[in-house]
Amino acid sequence: MTERHPLEKIFAPETVAFLGASDSMMTMGTVQMHNVISGGFKGEVYPVHPKLKTVLGRKAYPTIADLPDGIDIFVMVLPTRIVPEMLEQLGKKGITRGTVISGGFSEVGGGGKDLEKQVREVSEKYGIKFNGPNCIGICNPRHGYNNTWFPYEGKPGPIGLASQSGTYACHSFNHIKNQGTGFSKVISVGNEVTLDLVDCLEYFENDPETKAIALYIEGIRRGRDFIRVARRVAKKKPIVALYVGGTEAGARAGASHTAVMSGPDEIYEGAFRQAGVLRASSFPEMFDWCWALAEQPVPAGKNMAVVTNSGGPGSSFADAAGRLGMNVPVLSDEIQATLRKIIPHTASSKNPVDITFAVDMTTLIMDKIPRLLLSAPEIDGLLLYGIFTSQVFAKYAEQMGTDLPFSAEKMRQFDEMMSASFSKIPKEFGKPIVCSTFFTRDDDELICRLQDLGIPMLPSSERAAIAMHALYRYGRIKEKLANSDSPWDE
Amino acid sequence: MTERHPLEKIFAPETVAFLGASDSMMTMGTVQMHNVISGGFKGEVYPVHPKLKTVLGRKAYPTIADLPDGIDIFVMVLPTRIVPEMLEQLGKKGITRGTVISGGFSEVGGGGKDLEKQVREVSEKYGIKFNGPNCIGICNPRHGYNNTWFPYEGKPGPIGLASQSGTYACHSFNHIKNQGTGFSKVISVGNEVTLDLVDCLEYFENDPETKAIALYIEGIRRGRDFIRVARRVAKKKPIVALYVGGTEAGARAGASHTAVMSGPDEIYEGAFRQAGVLRASSFPEMFDWCWALAEQPVPAGKNMAVVTNSGGPGSSFADAAGRLGMNVPVLSDEIQATLRKIIPHTASSKNPVDITFAVDMTTLIMDKIPRLLLSAPEIDGLLLYGIFTSQVFAKYAEQMGTDLPFSAEKMRQFDEMMSASFSKIPKEFGKPIVCSTFFTRDDDELICRLQDLGIPMLPSSERAAIAMHALYRYGRIKEKLANSDSPWDE
Repeated sequence: MTERHPLEKIFAPETVAFLGASDSMMTMGTVQMHNVISGGFKGEVYPVHPKLKTVLGRKAYPTIADLPDGIDIFVMVLPTRIVPEMLEQLGKKGITRGTVISGGFSEVGGGGKDLEKQVREVSEKYGIKFNGPNCIGICNPRHGYNNTWFPYEGKPGPIGLASQSGTYACHSFNHIKNQGTGFSKVISVGNEVTLDLVDCLEYFENDPETKAIALYIEGIRRGRDFIRVARRVAKKKPIVALYVGGTEAGARAGASHTAVMSGPDEIYEGAFRQAGVLRASSFPEMFDWCWALAEQPVPAGKNMAVVTNSGGPGSSFADAAGRLGMNVPVLSDEIQATLRKIIPHTASSKNPVDITFAVDMTTLIMDKIPRLLLSAPEIDGLLLYGIFTSQVFAKYAEQMGTDLPFSAEKMRQFDEMMSASFSKIPKEFGKPIVCSTFFTRDDDELICRLQDLGIPMLPSSERAAIAMHALYRYGRIKEKLANSDSPWDE
Repeated sequence: MTERHPLEKIFAPETVAFLGASDSMMTMGTVQMHNVISGGFKGEVYPVHPKLKTVLGRKAYPTIADLPDGIDIFVMVLPTRIVPEMLEQLGKKGITRGTVISGGFSEVGGGGKDLEKQVREVSEKYGIKFNGPNCIGICNPRHGYNNTWFPYEGKPGPIGLASQSGTYACHSFNHIKNQGTGFSKVISVGNEVTLDLVDCLEYFENDPETKAIALYIEGIRRGRDFIRVARRVAKKKPIVALYVGGTEAGARAGASHTAVMSGPDEIYEGAFRQAGVLRASSFPEMFDWCWALAEQPVPAGKNMAVVTNSGGPGSSFADAAGRLGMNVPVLSDEIQATLRKIIPHTASSKNPVDITFAVDMTTLIMDKIPRLLLSAPEIDGLLLYGIFTSQVFAKYAEQMGTDLPFSAEKMRQFDEMMSASFSKIPKEFGKPIVCSTFFTRDDDELICRLQDLGIPMLPSSERAAIAMHALYRYGRIKEKLANSDSPWDE
């Protein structure tokens, strides 16, 4: 099979040569090889170790030359000074794709810079391509392949992440799991000697599992290429960037971290704008947006309906939407009249639609009202608060020692039916729904179910409104890019 | 005992008359009474019910007149139209403190306005004071008293919340529990007929359990009083407000929610500034700030040290601090020289101090480096990422079937010792520490322990930096208020 992109094998190898693992779990390499073999990887791992006969139960090979032929990729977690020599041997052996975890190169200056030059030269000589050096690795949850320092315990998802920070690449596994979504692929790019963020964009462009692309950026090494490629990719898939090199201290941090040269904030801001890249202001925000962008249709306009069973979160939606320049218009008399027939007398029908308390709450909030509002031509999207499992009633009933009108099992079936139907509404109407909730996946199984069905449920109304605004902005970006041929116009 | 403030009894009653509970858990009143009796409340509850002999296992009284004398407070969850008459009877019985949950008053307009007028008149006639109507109730975790619709399952904490949203008052129990801190007292003020936000400020001013005050505001009914009282309170305790009435849609939401008149954003912004109130931009941010303000000393200046074991979160701290106008200065040669003796060669000593990977990570990051940096006169506070429990090694060891150099129990003892010592550093140096982490309380017991010891650990570097900035700003507010006599100067 011809290689379409060097990252294909690096993300989804069948066979891996592992350099730098032993049986001591106090070394990074051992933990990283352990994560490969214990994360569901179906392929073969071939450890190389000068002394040990086996490493983590796998037969070890004393040198690279001793390895079987035809191995797909290497993973290297070795002392800095021997990295060039090992790459030379890998090149000779024909293993030219992989990951170099080892740090201590240009990011520390001095001799590190010379070593990095050697790494570059030997890579060019043999056509070696790898992510790193000075990175944390790769994770491909659907392939069960994770060579980073952290286990990936969440579900596979639609978000592709390329990160100039190794921590952000792997500590974020936990963030994304708790948030309720998942990664398609994660790559830590490190010092980007042979593969950089632009290469990652090109890979994600054609990766069917990646629906939204997140980039953590301390500095872009190929500015013009980045803008050119991003403009092309953004026509198909949303790109969200977090850039932290724009302040003096941020730039200093980046330089000592991955030896990247950052630039003034305005320059990057302009480049992102030209490139059709949405810029997030924080790490969680980048994933909030990617989640919404990956799962929901873009709204055609900025008129939002707000539905809630609770005044506060409803007011926060309306206020946040207003601040972002979106509208929460008063609903038409016709819609209001229809609404008033089904909501309690204490409820508000204007917009926000605040149901307050109703016995048929779930049916109203997850079915009747969303369908009514999204069928209105004047409404482009829905912000919603007020979903929680009917199991809360079961819990109360148990505490009180009383019986429920329905069995817990019946209520669970009801939750299941409602969530399946609710999660289809955005596609049916071609309009997005973004929700907020104070409950986590651990607290509430209905929240889990809806998140797993692609409904972004964010932990505050403000974050949900901001994610909806990102959807709106991406819609406009796509329109602009579709109508422009020149790569430089605005 | 003479009453210092009407809210004293309402927050901490010994005896409660409950109007509107039955044995059917499909009514709000029943759930709310259930929460009172099952939340650890040591006092007596006296349900009033026209027909039932008992309610939730307590002897029920057919009328208010039948109740024993000397009951501290009432809680009322009754149909709107009978509320004035019930208040009349309570007044006659001498029960003049309490909570009115019932809605359907001025927030729905029309006849609701007339009913609210009657409620006001009867309250004035008998000197009745209550929170509400149209509210969700009261929660005092240390007293085990929670009459809201949601159970309070977290720990008691230092944050007092007065909210014009009932949801925000009780759904936030979960938010605050998962965040890692807790409430001292929570009050939902509803339509504020006899007690409003200004009364709550005056109560919190003298409540020793409340170290920081959170206000959710849709509109302030007594503007001048608010500014006067807030200026006085802010000298002693930080006040953080979330105001959502400044946009057209936000104002509309508020009007139909608690019948409050909101005002233009600029007016409120100016009022908060005059009053020494910090204004948060989202609900979670309000609690982030309150947490930091309640637990940490204010920094004397804006020079921050950043310590991390991971480049990304360190860069984000530096970038966010820079955007907020704080400094992350290059450390003095002397400090850097001392640092370099203890950190690995791949580490950065400039600031951010990025340790990368070290075997004695925990000791470096939780002890040696914070003490060294906070002892420097040029540093006012510390932003830190990189704490996670040594149990992660135990987990890996178990998976790998290898032995650790130390037993899991030894490592737990080590964690315990380190966290106890680390949590004392801010007081020792009189300088704040705010941390970020991607791990939750469920993920990591060291995170739990540190949070319980008063270290704010927020879920992103940006949020931690913003909370540190709130600490800095409160320091300046205190200075200003201390040096000003006039209530109106800036």
